[in-house]
Amino acid sequence: MAKANAVVGQSGGPTGVINASLVGVIEEAKKHPEIKNLYGAIHAVAGMVKDEFINLKKLSPTVLKNVAASSSSVLGSSRDKPDEAYCAKILEVFKKRDIRYFFYIGGNDSANTAHIINIMAAKSGYELRAFHVPKTIDNDLLVTDHCPGYGTAAKFEACALIGDDLDNRSLPGIKIDVIMGRHAGFLTAAAALGRQRDDDGPHLLYFPERGVSMDKFLGDVDGVYKKLGRCVIAVSEGMCDTDGVVWTKKIAENSEKDAHGNIQLSGTGVLADYLAGQVKGKLGIKRVRADTFGYLQRSFAGLQSSVDVKEARQCGIMAVKFAMKETSGSVAMERTGSGKKYAVKYVRTELSNVAEKTKSMPDEFINAEGNGVTKAFIEYAMPLTGGVPESAHLDGNPRV
Amino acid sequence: MAKANAVVGQSGGPTGVINASLVGVIEEAKKHPEIKNLYGAIHAVAGMVKDEFINLKKLSPTVLKNVAASSSSVLGSSRDKPDEAYCAKILEVFKKRDIRYFFYIGGNDSANTAHIINIMAAKSGYELRAFHVPKTIDNDLLVTDHCPGYGTAAKFEACALIGDDLDNRSLPGIKIDVIMGRHAGFLTAAAALGRQRDDDGPHLLYFPERGVSMDKFLGDVDGVYKKLGRCVIAVSEGMCDTDGVVWTKKIAENSEKDAHGNIQLSGTGVLADYLAGQVKGKLGIKRVRADTFGYLQRSFAGLQSSVDVKEARQCGIMAVKFAMKETSGSVAMERTGSGKKYAVKYVRTELSNVAEKTKSMPDEFINAEGNGVTKAFIEYAMPLTGGVPESAHLDGNPRV
Repeated sequence: MAKANAVVGQSGGPTGVINASLVGVIEEAKKHPEIKNLYGAIHAVAGMVKDEFINLKKLSPTVLKNVAASSSSVLGSSRDKPDEAYCAKILEVFKKRDIRYFFYIGGNDSANTAHIINIMAAKSGYELRAFHVPKTIDNDLLVTDHCPGYGTAAKFEACALIGDDLDNRSLPGIKIDVIMGRHAGFLTAAAALGRQRDDDGPHLLYFPERGVSMDKFLGDVDGVYKKLGRCVIAVSEGMCDTDGVVWTKKIAENSEKDAHGNIQLSGTGVLADYLAGQVKGKLGIKRVRADTFGYLQRSFAGLQSSVDVKEARQCGIMAVKFAMKETSGSVAMERTGSGKKYAVKYVRTELSNVAEKTKSMPDEFINAEGNGVTKAFIEYAMPLTGGVPESAHLDGNPRV
Repeated sequence: MAKANAVVGQSGGPTGVINASLVGVIEEAKKHPEIKNLYGAIHAVAGMVKDEFINLKKLSPTVLKNVAASSSSVLGSSRDKPDEAYCAKILEVFKKRDIRYFFYIGGNDSANTAHIINIMAAKSGYELRAFHVPKTIDNDLLVTDHCPGYGTAAKFEACALIGDDLDNRSLPGIKIDVIMGRHAGFLTAAAALGRQRDDDGPHLLYFPERGVSMDKFLGDVDGVYKKLGRCVIAVSEGMCDTDGVVWTKKIAENSEKDAHGNIQLSGTGVLADYLAGQVKGKLGIKRVRADTFGYLQRSFAGLQSSVDVKEARQCGIMAVKFAMKETSGSVAMERTGSGKKYAVKYVRTELSNVAEKTKSMPDEFINAEGNGVTKAFIEYAMPLTGGVPESAHLDGNPRV
C-alpha cells in the first residue's frame, strides 16, 4: 500500500493498561514510513465522526512513558455503538484525510466497529487496513488467551481481597464484596488470587456462569461461618439465580416501589446491601458488611500489573506490524508456557471472530459446588497479575 | 521499676500501618531487659480478659518484616468498649501474669481504655505503665499533628481519585465518591491530593465540618457540569445538612419503609445511590455514577505510604522508650519541618488529652465555599502520603 495516514482510538470502559496499548501503536507506527501521520481520535468514534484528532507521532518519549504508566484512556473514550450510518460518516472522514490504517483498542463492540467499517471500505473500493487491539477488564473476548486490562484489574481484586480478608480476620464477621465483570466471572474469580492459606478468604465466590439460588447462597455462608466464625464472599455483579434471572433484577421485582423515588434499585450499592440484609435477617449474624468495588477496579492509579502493561503494549505493537502485511484482524495472545515459564505469542485472528461475541469462564475454572475456583484458574490467572503482595500472619505461634 | 512482663494490643478498625506500630513496639521491647516477656493480646481487650496471648519477643526478623509490610491488625482487633468492670478483669489478668507495661495501639477509645486501666491500677497500688500508640485513618485524634494510618489511607484516596478523574475525563459525566472518616473530613479531603491540573477532579468536596443543603450541593454540581461538561465529587460518609443532621439520616426519614425489609437504608451504598438519583432526577444529567469506597480504604494490600509506615513504627518504638521513664501517656507527633524538609518529632502527652476526644478539620483547610480544600491542607497532607502517582494527559496537544 502507498504511504497514507493512520488513526488510533480507545473505546469502551477505561482500563489500567489501555494507554500502554496506545503507546505500543504509536511506537511501532513511528518505525514505519508507510504511516505518514498517526492521528489520535478524541473520544474514539465520536472524534472520528467529528473530525477531532491530535498528532501522535510528535509525542516525546517522556510523554509516552508517562502515558503508558497512566490508567484510563488518554485520548478519551466513547460509549457510542456505531451503526451503518455512523460508520459511513467515519469512512467519509477517513477518505477526506487519506486515513488507510485504522487501529481500534477496545472490547467486542470495538472489534465490531472495525469490522463494519472494514467491510464498508471494501465495498466502496477504498483500501483500508482495520485492526482491533483487545482491551477489557472483564476478560471476555474470544480467541485470545486473556485480555489486556484483565491482569491489572485482577491484581486490584487480589490486593483488595488480601486486605479485606486480613480485616475480616481481625474483626470477624461476614464480608460481601460485589465485583465487576458483566456476564463473565473472570474478575470475581481473581479475588481468589490473594489466598495464601487454607482458611484465607474469599471463602465463597459466585459467578454468572453458575446460577445460584438465595437459599443455596445463604446455606453456603452459614456453613463457612459455623466452621470459621467468619466468611468473606466475592459475588459477581451479574450473578443470577438458577433460572438465569440476574439477582439484581429479582431484588427489584421483590421490593416495593418507593413513592418518593428515592431508592435507586439500579444503584451501585443495592446488590451488596441486599445480600447483607439477607445474611443478617435470615442467618441472624450480627456483624455483616458489604462493599461494591465499583470503578476503582478499572481505573485505580499506580497499580498496574507489570505483565499486563508489557502485553498491552505488545498488542499495540503487533497490530501495527500485522497491518503492514494483512488487511484486517484482531490481535490475540496464545499462551506458550505456564508457571514460571509463562509466555505468550501474538497472533492475528479475523475481526469477525471477536466482534460482538463474549466468552464465559470455562467449567474447569469453577469448582464442583459452583462457589469457588479451581487450581486450573489460579494457574491461568496468577501470571497475569505480575505477582500479588504477601499477607502476614502469626497463626502458627502458640498461646502462652 | 523491677523487671516485669509487657502486653501489646491492636484495637479498633485496622489500618495499613497498625502492624508497623506493633513491630516498632516489639523491636524496641527486645532492647530493654526491663521487659521480660512481651505478650501480644489476641483480639485486643477481648484477649486480655480471656487471657489469650502469644509471645512476641520470639518472632524472627523475617516475620517482623512481613508483619510491618502487611495491612490490618495481625494480632486481631476488637470493637469492645471496656467499662470499669471489664477493665477490672483485665487488671486481674495483668496482676496474675505480672504485666506492668501496657501498650495499646488504637484510636481515642483505646486511649480511654489505657486511661481507665491506668487509674484503676494506681488506685489498687499496682505499678503499671500504660501507653497509647495513635492509629486511625480518620486522623481525628487530638494533640498529634496527624495519626499513623492516615497517610496510607490518604494515598489510597489520592490514587482512587486520580484514576476516577481520568476515567471521568475519558467518559464524561457526574461521578460521586463516598469516603470514610466518620465525623472528620480529613480522609475526604485527601481525595484532592491527586489533583495535578486546574481542571482535575475532584472538583467538589464535602466535609462533615461544613453542613451543606441538598440544594447547595445540586447547585454546585450544576455549576461545574455547565463549565466542564463533567464533575467528580468526593463526599464524606458523615456529611450533614445545614442543621447538623447527617444526610444518611435525612434520606432514611424521607424514604418510605419497604414492607419486605429488603432495602437496607443503613447499607453502604445508600448515600451514593441517593445522591446519584438526586443529580439524575433534579439536574437531568444522564451519565451519573456513584461509588462508596468502603473497607478498601483501610485495608487494601500493598499500598502503604512509606512515610506513614516509618512514622507508625517510630510511634511504637517511642511508646516503649517513654515507658522506660514515665508512667503513662500517648505518643504524639509534632511537625518540625514542612515541604521538602518535612519532619516530625515524637512527644508524650497525657492519656486524658487523647481519650474519648475527637478532632475536626481546621477551618484553614476548607475553602470559603465549603466545597473544597485549601493550599494549606495540601501542604499539610501531601508529605504524609509519601508521594502519589503522576497522571498523564495530552491536553496541550493541538487538534490537527
